Amino acid sequence: MDIKRIQLQSHGDQRGMLIALEPERNVPFPIRRVYYLFATRQKVHRGRHAHRHLNQLAISVRGSVTFLLDDGNGPTEVVLDDPSQGLLLGRMVWRELYDFSDDCVLMVLADQPYDPGDYITDYDLFLKEVHAELYPAGLVACLDR
Amino acid sequence: MDIKRIQLQSHGDQRGMLIALEPERNVPFPIRRVYYLFATRQKVHRGRHAHRHLNQLAISVRGSVTFLLDDGNGPTEVVLDDPSQGLLLGRMVWRELYDFSDDCVLMVLADQPYDPGDYITDYDLFLKEVHAELYPAGLVACLDR
Repeated sequence: MDIKRIQLQSHGDQRGMLIALEPERNVPFPIRRVYYLFATRQKVHRGRHAHRHLNQLAISVRGSVTFLLDDGNGPTEVVLDDPSQGLLLGRMVWRELYDFSDDCVLMVLADQPYDPGDYITDYDLFLKEVHAELYPAGLVACLDR
Repeated sequence: MDIKRIQLQSHGDQRGMLIALEPERNVPFPIRRVYYLFATRQKVHRGRHAHRHLNQLAISVRGSVTFLLDDGNGPTEVVLDDPSQGLLLGRMVWRELYDFSDDCVLMVLADQPYDPGDYITDYDLFLKEVHAELYPAGLVACLDR
């Protein structure tokens, strides 16, 4: 699955903590968008989509949240509850977000500006597109011989 | 003073809040660095420097913090305590940060990667450099005539 947890270097001293994110240092793409989710209500699910092209780095800079991630081969859960842990999400990964703590602030860096056309919001369509990539018709025909 | 408070558009609905930051939309520079401060200890002062070239956008995405800002013509205080309020800080502004709430997470977007040579950490040197810009010797000589 095109996801990866990364440990971010904390520059801590007697004053407190600082974490810096820079392309070509610890972010594997140019930063063209930053967004953050906060004041998420209890029992809310967010996400429920995949991106055809977008790459993202998600960090729960405060509180905790659970991701359900699926690349077409079944789901896996990842909990983000540490501001020094990043979650790299590649393209074509279905994600649902839930179990937001009351204080959760989820920050996401993305490699492209907002593009509604990049979203797949229908899970069946996602499965169809991702399976077409994973198991191209030509390859299946070839293996069937 | 080269500072500006900006109101960021919140995309709120029954699920919670989302704020997005994009160059050429609501960030007036390319994003080449993102950093965040958290777990700052009580009574700590941070900052105490100016940048010769760096432009930044600071947002307290959780909790509150006070900025003392000085462009060489005396200090002013700005409190950030709202995740939808951004503080644009231009070059040659001395800043000190204090009164961090226990839960404060201060996120900063910057238009350049980290460059130690861009920092002025001595207030007297800052005053000297900024006054040299504000009151060039030629202009003073001219006004003295």
